[in-house]
Amino acid sequence: MYVIITYDITDDKRLNKVRKILRKYLYWTQLSTFEGEISEGKLSKCMAEVNNVIEIKEDSVYVYKVENPKNLEKNVLGIEKGHIDNFL
Amino acid sequence: MYVIITYDITDDKRLNKVRKILRKYLYWTQLSTFEGEISEGKLSKCMAEVNNVIEIKEDSVYVYKVENPKNLEKNVLGIEKGHIDNFL
Repeated sequence: MYVIITYDITDDKRLNKVRKILRKYLYWTQLSTFEGEISEGKLSKCMAEVNNVIEIKEDSVYVYKVENPKNLEKNVLGIEKGHIDNFL
Repeated sequence: MYVIITYDITDDKRLNKVRKILRKYLYWTQLSTFEGEISEGKLSKCMAEVNNVIEIKEDSVYVYKVENPKNLEKNVLGIEKGHIDNFL
């Protein structure tokens, strides 16, 4: 399964915690975007950890799931940040 | 076709221009995320407009395309911003 995770986290402390969790499971490809292949089990674990950190009345996390990666096409305008670890 | 567009635009003027373009075609659902159903033709038109605005050596725009929306599942943690026009 391929997933894209985007987020608006209103507090910097929570934001860093969420990113730290997501980096264990996926690739950080834009400041507010993680993506990559992941199993259903690992995704559930990841989301449970994120859910423990965010403030559900203030923060927003979207998880877009595509079962078969062949059904997803990605186009890039400008730079592809790939693994953002190399840039920050 | 369903698309999700995410972006990192390093200059506020360009950022506002990109958002203004995207709002003509899609729903603004997080600060750096637009999504919605769109035809191939309209998407090409939209991307041509965005391409005219961004600085390709600095900015990053990802266009995730799923031909059949049934192949995409979206889960939300926290708040679903829906149409961000109502929030800003």
